[in-house]
Amino acid sequence: MISFESDYTNGAHPKVLERLIATNTETLPGYGSDRYCQSAREKIRAACGCPDADVFFLVGGTQTNAVVIDAVLNRYEGAVAADTGHVAVHEAGAVEFTGHKVLTLPQHGGKIGPGELEQYLAGFYQDANHAHMVFPGMVYLTHPTELGTLYTKEELEQIAGICRSYEIPLFLDGARLGYGLMSRDTDVALTDVAALCDVFYIGGTKVGALCGEAVVFTGKAPEHFMTSVKQHGALLAKGRLLGVQFDALFTDNLYFDIGRHGIEMAEELKKVFSENGYRFAWESPTNQQFVILENEEMERLGRQVSFDFWEKADETHTVARFATSWATEKEDIEELRELLRAGKNVKKEA
Amino acid sequence: MISFESDYTNGAHPKVLERLIATNTETLPGYGSDRYCQSAREKIRAACGCPDADVFFLVGGTQTNAVVIDAVLNRYEGAVAADTGHVAVHEAGAVEFTGHKVLTLPQHGGKIGPGELEQYLAGFYQDANHAHMVFPGMVYLTHPTELGTLYTKEELEQIAGICRSYEIPLFLDGARLGYGLMSRDTDVALTDVAALCDVFYIGGTKVGALCGEAVVFTGKAPEHFMTSVKQHGALLAKGRLLGVQFDALFTDNLYFDIGRHGIEMAEELKKVFSENGYRFAWESPTNQQFVILENEEMERLGRQVSFDFWEKADETHTVARFATSWATEKEDIEELRELLRAGKNVKKEA
Amino acid sequence: MISFESDYTNGAHPKVLERLIATNTETLPGYGSDRYCQSAREKIRAACGCPDADVFFLVGGTQTNAVVIDAVLNRYEGAVAADTGHVAVHEAGAVEFTGHKVLTLPQHGGKIGPGELEQYLAGFYQDANHAHMVFPGMVYLTHPTELGTLYTKEELEQIAGICRSYEIPLFLDGARLGYGLMSRDTDVALTDVAALCDVFYIGGTKVGALCGEAVVFTGKAPEHFMTSVKQHGALLAKGRLLGVQFDALFTDNLYFDIGRHGIEMAEELKKVFSENGYRFAWESPTNQQFVILENEEMERLGRQVSFDFWEKADETHTVARFATSWATEKEDIEELRELLRAGKNVKKEA
Amino acid sequence: MISFESDYTNGAHPKVLERLIATNTETLPGYGSDRYCQSAREKIRAACGCPDADVFFLVGGTQTNAVVIDAVLNRYEGAVAADTGHVAVHEAGAVEFTGHKVLTLPQHGGKIGPGELEQYLAGFYQDANHAHMVFPGMVYLTHPTELGTLYTKEELEQIAGICRSYEIPLFLDGARLGYGLMSRDTDVALTDVAALCDVFYIGGTKVGALCGEAVVFTGKAPEHFMTSVKQHGALLAKGRLLGVQFDALFTDNLYFDIGRHGIEMAEELKKVFSENGYRFAWESPTNQQFVILENEEMERLGRQVSFDFWEKADETHTVARFATSWATEKEDIEELRELLRAGKNVKKEA
Repeated sequence: MISFESDYTNGAHPKVLERLIATNTETLPGYGSDRYCQSAREKIRAACGCPDADVFFLVGGTQTNAVVIDAVLNRYEGAVAADTGHVAVHEAGAVEFTGHKVLTLPQHGGKIGPGELEQYLAGFYQDANHAHMVFPGMVYLTHPTELGTLYTKEELEQIAGICRSYEIPLFLDGARLGYGLMSRDTDVALTDVAALCDVFYIGGTKVGALCGEAVVFTGKAPEHFMTSVKQHGALLAKGRLLGVQFDALFTDNLYFDIGRHGIEMAEELKKVFSENGYRFAWESPTNQQFVILENEEMERLGRQVSFDFWEKADETHTVARFATSWATEKEDIEELRELLRAGKNVKKEA
Repeated sequence: MISFESDYTNGAHPKVLERLIATNTETLPGYGSDRYCQSAREKIRAACGCPDADVFFLVGGTQTNAVVIDAVLNRYEGAVAADTGHVAVHEAGAVEFTGHKVLTLPQHGGKIGPGELEQYLAGFYQDANHAHMVFPGMVYLTHPTELGTLYTKEELEQIAGICRSYEIPLFLDGARLGYGLMSRDTDVALTDVAALCDVFYIGGTKVGALCGEAVVFTGKAPEHFMTSVKQHGALLAKGRLLGVQFDALFTDNLYFDIGRHGIEMAEELKKVFSENGYRFAWESPTNQQFVILENEEMERLGRQVSFDFWEKADETHTVARFATSWATEKEDIEELRELLRAGKNVKKEA
Repeated sequence: MISFESDYTNGAHPKVLERLIATNTETLPGYGSDRYCQSAREKIRAACGCPDADVFFLVGGTQTNAVVIDAVLNRYEGAVAADTGHVAVHEAGAVEFTGHKVLTLPQHGGKIGPGELEQYLAGFYQDANHAHMVFPGMVYLTHPTELGTLYTKEELEQIAGICRSYEIPLFLDGARLGYGLMSRDTDVALTDVAALCDVFYIGGTKVGALCGEAVVFTGKAPEHFMTSVKQHGALLAKGRLLGVQFDALFTDNLYFDIGRHGIEMAEELKKVFSENGYRFAWESPTNQQFVILENEEMERLGRQVSFDFWEKADETHTVARFATSWATEKEDIEELRELLRAGKNVKKEA
Repeated sequence: MISFESDYTNGAHPKVLERLIATNTETLPGYGSDRYCQSAREKIRAACGCPDADVFFLVGGTQTNAVVIDAVLNRYEGAVAADTGHVAVHEAGAVEFTGHKVLTLPQHGGKIGPGELEQYLAGFYQDANHAHMVFPGMVYLTHPTELGTLYTKEELEQIAGICRSYEIPLFLDGARLGYGLMSRDTDVALTDVAALCDVFYIGGTKVGALCGEAVVFTGKAPEHFMTSVKQHGALLAKGRLLGVQFDALFTDNLYFDIGRHGIEMAEELKKVFSENGYRFAWESPTNQQFVILENEEMERLGRQVSFDFWEKADETHTVARFATSWATEKEDIEELRELLRAGKNVKKEA
């Protein structure tokens, strides 16, 4: 059965796996002090155009969000996020577990609006009771968002400007950053992300690694950040597992190639659906596509293709998410095309 | 340079790596629901003689300790541990970060004494002020301990009996369990651990995996434990990474073979040191050996062999830790023998 | 200057103070074990019609919310509240500080709707991803709400029924409960609150005490609740301070008399504003009244009366809160009447 | 029955109570912004010789320790304390609840030794693994200690010097500070405490107030400390309750007079015991005296005097704590003298 269920249903990109195999028997020091971690850090700094960045490797996305947010915030501060933000909804309260509130703004296509952000921050400090409230201590963005959408460079610049004027850091969750950077509809490059954010992470798990997220502090990391990582149970003894993978991902543009491949497959997928008269719940320029399916059709299709239930659209329709990744092949798309065509015939005949 | 620095300085055991390679392109669901996780769970249950155990896979040791302790304890409870226990000293306060105190008892060869445990628990409830103190909510053991030592079956039985009589769970940290089970000086089998503990974990990271610890609740796991794992940032999207590895480790006794190999190498290593007149800081029947070295000798040896500084013995001597693992080879031991002999000659001549 | 700023701007009701004076030199044991705490507990149980209730005395409202919510919830659970709920907005993140998320529902006049609550809970368990989300572990209501409004008995019954069917406790924050119970527009008695809630608190600070909130667990308190209180830094050494005050408040109906007086003054205050053509931002049947003032008028009035800025109504109008309490006197209302009349004249002349 | 059970078994000192009565009907703003809080702050600054100190009023000791320690420490830091320190033993884990470890040093008469402190801090930074451990982020002292003992000025200077050289703050828990300052055997004045500590608190609860502890940051308070106080549930709406009391305590030297009276009574009590041949478990120069009693005698005496069981001395003897306070009267001491004499006769006759 072909699968568009998610971008984490396959193992590592073959080139990443190769490097793990090649280095397996080397004796290397632990906790991220090995030469592959070092090399990966250098390559990431270079790719970001940020030679002084502090780079750390963590294991997964929820973990990274919790560790970074907790380390960056003061005790009395929370993180401002869209109400659809991953930290606000789908992390089982990992941020609150660290003692910090997620302060939500209404989402627009998965994004927060610079205007509303400005208004919220201004309003907070104007509120006579604000000392009794959670201080906004950082802004948290996802790029691509949970809806597959992207901030424009101008939006990022506006948000970064607002953060600077309120002296709070901007944190970008790039769990799927590779697909965002390689989108055909973006003007945001990795160097822009690095220039505009105080801290962000480059997702590995969903972009070709077995696991791993590379956290980039574009200025200086919080003091003793490694100890905070340990305190959160997020420090790997065999840190090499992350270093080797990111070293591979940032060798010969592999990370970007994976992103581009995912995007190409997503564009094909879009075409296939459009050709067959399907509508999308909203436009997504990245590797996640949100297709509106009639409920019966969804059930029929679900027997031959795996995808993700997203949400009910109305009584008779559902939004289904189709995701591509490094592992998606043209044959998968072709097979989907056949299935959709066949389905259309079924429908016509019905 | 030969290395006895630690049991986590090499990658995965070849058979583990093979399985990762073989399954890499399979499409598998996330978060531990894949068939390899399922298979590994079954094999672990069988090896433990515990067909109803709840088994979960986490990434690293500190993380596992924090997640399990926090999930098992009530809010007003702490974990009783030896004052040398990993949770008490070397986890950057990961347990306290979850809001729980580590209540320490004096260590004896890295172990807590059943008598002192009983006395402490009895004393706690006799103390008129105990409602103002942290309640002992569980007992935490490491086996092997941080000093490489092992509880006897009788000691474990006594401690488990005390826990039962006070109705608090017994948790065993088995980060290096494989080496403990295969020690020549133990009467504790995996089935004993499973019979006596309420929860324990089988360490993967230090016994042949790239990462991963298998948590075994011999009764029932705390309700919604998976959500607690997520909340702690410890849930892998590609849960397969852990499932495949543990499936390999529990196929054809690999986990035990790795343990036995580590022990055989450790026994050789002991012999080599003894032959050359070295003393040990204390007896260790497992894969970590603690050798007393003259400071000058340590420096000289350190240029040709890597090992771990443990602690100062006195002004002129140091305790050095030498660890073996699946990756230690007879050639490494031979090379060490030559170095020690040569060193002795140097000394004699001096 | 007359003051309607809040219900906590004066000291204790004279009868409460009298009891503190009368008992001051008695030697009493600490931590809530004295005879006045015991007597107050009995009187509260009787007033609640709940002879087996567990009653505890805490110091302040935010503290009580945090301690109760943390003690009642499991680690992976959050508290469901209106998005205007005190715990959601004005407690500086005290609930999140304990590691729990506040899960918000839209407010309607400061209240959550039973229909939306039911829908949210049903939706949560239908969501295939709910194990990755914070579980709704309790429902938190304020009564009166932050907007001075009240739940009807029917609404409380519906919400309590929903809680029972989902097996989660209902917690009612009664920081201003006395004013709610004595409202002319309520059918909810203290015995109803006790019958419908699993835990609630009877606010003292805003209803005649110097400080103090009485927490009532209508069933059994969470195990070792006193230790949890201590752990949160909420246990008074001189627990008598709270016991004596609540003993006084629940002697000869003082608590209810204070409530009634506050309501009578609030009704007078309403009349005075209405007579003079003022509108209210919304109807409040309790001791907080929300009046719409022209900005200029607000400024003028603010020189002679103190009240609380609530929020902007529009460019030229503001919502101001006027609160009454045990300390409000008829003379205060009369003086306000004169000021409003005089103001009207000023306006007419202008 | 005469009572030496504790220094918190009576209400407020009459002069403190008088001020509460006198100010009760005044309308005052909340949360510590009233004029009595302001006045108390000024008087405390003057008494400390510290005109720029930031002064805050909290309710109780455990709460104050938790709020201050959590606000002052970085996330990866713990508080260094004697293993008998209140935060280490008798606060139900309130510090750990905030996510911080209490790092214990061996006590000597309830105190930490400057030499051991220096050694511990030096050793910490020399330890190659210290990034995996909890950083010592502050030193916590009690003065008087839990054993009634006092640091000398020289000891405080040494400890303060060590803290400065390691750039960590020194925090002094002065729950019973008044009795320490007025001891006949101390060379430590309040101005010395203020000069040597970065933050300390002046205990009210045990020195004549109903409740309340005055926190003094001799430099600057942590940013938004009031919000942290609120977040911990420690901010009183009627902050006047604390302000009025501390204003009274620091008017006409009342705080010091209470301390002196407690000391005078303690010295009398000592004499009474000594005269009658009793031994002390250790020397205490403050208001807590630790007397060794034969078990049978303890039981007999306990029928006529209340005191606190401290610990078993040996099989036939117990250490009992006798505490004095503002409320102890000469008549109480006289009555005790009679009881002890009578007891001696009983013994002789036996």
